[in-house]
Amino acid sequence: FQVMRLLILSLLFVSTFAWFYGRDEPDRWSVGGVWPLPQKIIYGSKNRTLTYDKIGIDLGDRKDCDVLLSMADNYMNKWLFPYPVEMKTGGTEDFIITVTVKEECPSGPPVHGSSEEYLLRVSLSEAVINAQTVWGALRAMESLSHLVFYDQKSQEYKIRTVEIFDKPRFPVRGIMIDTSRHFLSLNVIKRQLEIMSMNKMNVLHWHLVDSESFPYTSDKFPELHGVGAYSPRHVYSREDIAEVIAFARLRGIRVIPEFDLPGHTSSWKGRKGFLTECFDEKGEETFLPNLVDPINEANFDFISEFLEEVTETFPDQFLHLGGDEVNDFIVECWVRNKKIRKFMEEKGFGNDTILLENYFFEKLFAIVEKLKLKRKPIFWQEVFDNNIPDPNSIIHIWKGNTHEEIYEQVKNITSKNFPVIISACWYLNYIKYGADWRDEISGTAPSNSRYYYCDPTNFNGTDAQKNLVLGGIAAIWGELVDNTNIEARLWPRASAAAERLWSPAEKTQRAEDAWPRMHELRCRLVSRGYRIQPNNNPDFCPFEFDEPPATKSEL
Amino acid sequence: FQVMRLLILSLLFVSTFAWFYGRDEPDRWSVGGVWPLPQKIIYGSKNRTLTYDKIGIDLGDRKDCDVLLSMADNYMNKWLFPYPVEMKTGGTEDFIITVTVKEECPSGPPVHGSSEEYLLRVSLSEAVINAQTVWGALRAMESLSHLVFYDQKSQEYKIRTVEIFDKPRFPVRGIMIDTSRHFLSLNVIKRQLEIMSMNKMNVLHWHLVDSESFPYTSDKFPELHGVGAYSPRHVYSREDIAEVIAFARLRGIRVIPEFDLPGHTSSWKGRKGFLTECFDEKGEETFLPNLVDPINEANFDFISEFLEEVTETFPDQFLHLGGDEVNDFIVECWVRNKKIRKFMEEKGFGNDTILLENYFFEKLFAIVEKLKLKRKPIFWQEVFDNNIPDPNSIIHIWKGNTHEEIYEQVKNITSKNFPVIISACWYLNYIKYGADWRDEISGTAPSNSRYYYCDPTNFNGTDAQKNLVLGGIAAIWGELVDNTNIEARLWPRASAAAERLWSPAEKTQRAEDAWPRMHELRCRLVSRGYRIQPNNNPDFCPFEFDEPPATKSEL
Repeated sequence: FQVMRLLILSLLFVSTFAWFYGRDEPDRWSVGGVWPLPQKIIYGSKNRTLTYDKIGIDLGDRKDCDVLLSMADNYMNKWLFPYPVEMKTGGTEDFIITVTVKEECPSGPPVHGSSEEYLLRVSLSEAVINAQTVWGALRAMESLSHLVFYDQKSQEYKIRTVEIFDKPRFPVRGIMIDTSRHFLSLNVIKRQLEIMSMNKMNVLHWHLVDSESFPYTSDKFPELHGVGAYSPRHVYSREDIAEVIAFARLRGIRVIPEFDLPGHTSSWKGRKGFLTECFDEKGEETFLPNLVDPINEANFDFISEFLEEVTETFPDQFLHLGGDEVNDFIVECWVRNKKIRKFMEEKGFGNDTILLENYFFEKLFAIVEKLKLKRKPIFWQEVFDNNIPDPNSIIHIWKGNTHEEIYEQVKNITSKNFPVIISACWYLNYIKYGADWRDEISGTAPSNSRYYYCDPTNFNGTDAQKNLVLGGIAAIWGELVDNTNIEARLWPRASAAAERLWSPAEKTQRAEDAWPRMHELRCRLVSRGYRIQPNNNPDFCPFEFDEPPATKSEL
Repeated sequence: FQVMRLLILSLLFVSTFAWFYGRDEPDRWSVGGVWPLPQKIIYGSKNRTLTYDKIGIDLGDRKDCDVLLSMADNYMNKWLFPYPVEMKTGGTEDFIITVTVKEECPSGPPVHGSSEEYLLRVSLSEAVINAQTVWGALRAMESLSHLVFYDQKSQEYKIRTVEIFDKPRFPVRGIMIDTSRHFLSLNVIKRQLEIMSMNKMNVLHWHLVDSESFPYTSDKFPELHGVGAYSPRHVYSREDIAEVIAFARLRGIRVIPEFDLPGHTSSWKGRKGFLTECFDEKGEETFLPNLVDPINEANFDFISEFLEEVTETFPDQFLHLGGDEVNDFIVECWVRNKKIRKFMEEKGFGNDTILLENYFFEKLFAIVEKLKLKRKPIFWQEVFDNNIPDPNSIIHIWKGNTHEEIYEQVKNITSKNFPVIISACWYLNYIKYGADWRDEISGTAPSNSRYYYCDPTNFNGTDAQKNLVLGGIAAIWGELVDNTNIEARLWPRASAAAERLWSPAEKTQRAEDAWPRMHELRCRLVSRGYRIQPNNNPDFCPFEFDEPPATKSEL
């Protein structure tokens, strides 16, 4: 195999010559471009034709590994050749993809920091994948699939020759879904997992429960979903969750559950005594309590037992326990509540509700500390901003009007030695009109657009601080999102975050350079059957997404 | 049949008791509510059980009418019973829907002003539909289908008893699609037609061609799509168009084509000499001409021949000829063009490009006047604002930052005796975060939200002026919309326009009153298989939309 420099520019880009606007380089897209951009990629000058009957995969010593078998099945039978064209056969030599993985086949999902590094060489005669772990092999195979393109002229599938060395910039690259405001079906969640893996994302942050509904089914405490779910149809059984975790694992994705405490808890009302009574300005009891009662000691036993079950359900070593927006309910539910006030006096907290919050969180930290299955807790940033997080905590940043404000927070929190995860740059539920992944959209906070340009380590700090930046999670809160629209709303906007979190910053400075590859990604995933919406103004894909036929009108 | 006043309120609304925010009345939705709200509706106090085997339809003298046969097929076999539940049979008397239509079965689509009036009576023993036209019968049947609900308690389909008299407030209630910026498949267009009919909308305004691509295939001038389409796959043959028109007809929908002239014409470049040369500030020729050359006399012969073909393709008596945003290109393509300047001098226009625009439009009016198949032209408002429209024209309003500005324009244009169609209130492509159909969303022009509150006749004017308001067309421009996302982005936001344009203003003053019905509509259409997105913050449907299963991960 000979490493060749890029010789022929026309191989890289296709021109359309159509009238477009709002773009520096309007009429090109990449051919065989890889998304997210690898750490190092050197294209050869030649392509080779691929035919269905001449392609094979060799899993070497790992022929029994379910992750690799699933990978081989998915890519060989679907993802490599997604276009609705007749597949040519014969007329060429065998093309074997040899996959070599150093570590044993893991029985569980990837863990934090699992290697995803890989080497990929594609020559005219073969492809070679070398990886430390099966997760690296999955990433390599996805890259390989991006090198495959359909040559409209010769009407053949081709693959670009290439040498790639690749590994992620950050260990946490995720999507947060919210199944409380609107329920999401297993099919829809799995589809997002598939698209995530096609963007080399590795974390599903599952915000399972919030004020509005409680779709998580606890075996120990069935009154929670019994009262708190939207309906008996709007629940995830523990088997459902196991199915999601297994599906995610086969795609190199961890599932981190969130149970938000002590606020956002209205839907826990099935548990008697768990929530305080809350009062409006006139002192009348409101019917929507939304804060845990911290003075009911039984609540901590309950949380402990509940979390023991949660850890048995979710194997990931991270456990998100929320902690956001307690302030929004504190006056109504704690300050105006006489029992709470009395308790605060007894404890010597005076009027300082922060001390009561700290009291709650300290007891929560102690619970986490004692869990049989050890977990590293994640908290939303308020627990850092207002309280005193357990030193073992990860802080999850969601606030900030500008990228600079967000970087300042990253700097501040990491200076106190807390690892951080950033979502503030990628609140994808905030939709606007325009190419918001790259352009600033007026009428919205600056941090709510230009997703591609948010770089979480872009602050003055030590290397140790920057190493505390674990990555980012693009959030799609569920207020206005359900099965009908989540997919097109997420993608390819979340792909911008995926590239930012995987690729070297210095090679991904300009959205203008990225979009021809993003366009190709979109069209590739559209042909794989996913609703990847246009997000760069007028364009087209060689093969468009389509719906099944509408009602037949012919009688 | 006895008309009964509403006796039992609990029949009307279902409560969910979940924690919601941002709503006056958070926890209710209608049961058997009709959208858009009929002119007059009086519910009975009782419901009757419907079973699949006991329901029948009697089309009376119109048993051979394809529109009614298609209707019977669609509703009896699909739309009346959309939920994924086991259907009970037997145990009740026959329930026959008797449909009586006065006018003969029409061979063509509905025409402007076709009656859509109907009477619908549902008693415990039968349903009776009386209508002037088949279009009225279609509207009645849709209303009837809204009276059907699934009773979760008894696990039965039921229908509400009711007496409805109904007719639309405005004759034009439409959706504008744009197939130039992004191509839309026939399946996707047909799905939108189905959802339109479920909202009693009756006009598809098809903005076929724009600067970006030319998907219309002309038999006489195949060089147009040959050069101007995105690809040979991105075109509508005349057979495709006939299929759309036939599909729309069976649902009571007219199809009005738009060919935008003289601007937005880059994609017509296949026709040599049709566009002027255009020049940038330095006098260099730009490669994206976007204005017709008005001094090339052959162009008018071409337009004439082209429009003859268009009128043979589209039977509707309205023909939209654009006329918008000529100003955007006039400096580049006319002012800086020496040949044009010379022509203007010769004609005595001096430097006044408006006179050249007028010259173009006068010749265009003359062409329309002489078409073999008579057409009423529609122009975007600039032709009124800047030029002198043919007195036969309809003016299409798309500008205005506030509802008041829009009403002022309606007042002004109707005072000059021009009929108007309003789109300015319903630019649905401008997405924002929130319940924009009813709430003002900051960071956007006020006219780009609160769709439900735009009332086109809300101006001081004579009855004659108000009668010139033909209705409205909700526009979903295609810059960021294609097959992947158009459906969820349109609906139910366009349903707000549908109710405004159909229902009496005085009964539809508050979005808070409307949303329980809109919620029920959303869930009904979701169960019919359409992607009707949530647009009222957290909620759920008894049966949610779902995707087909993702890739099987099991080997």
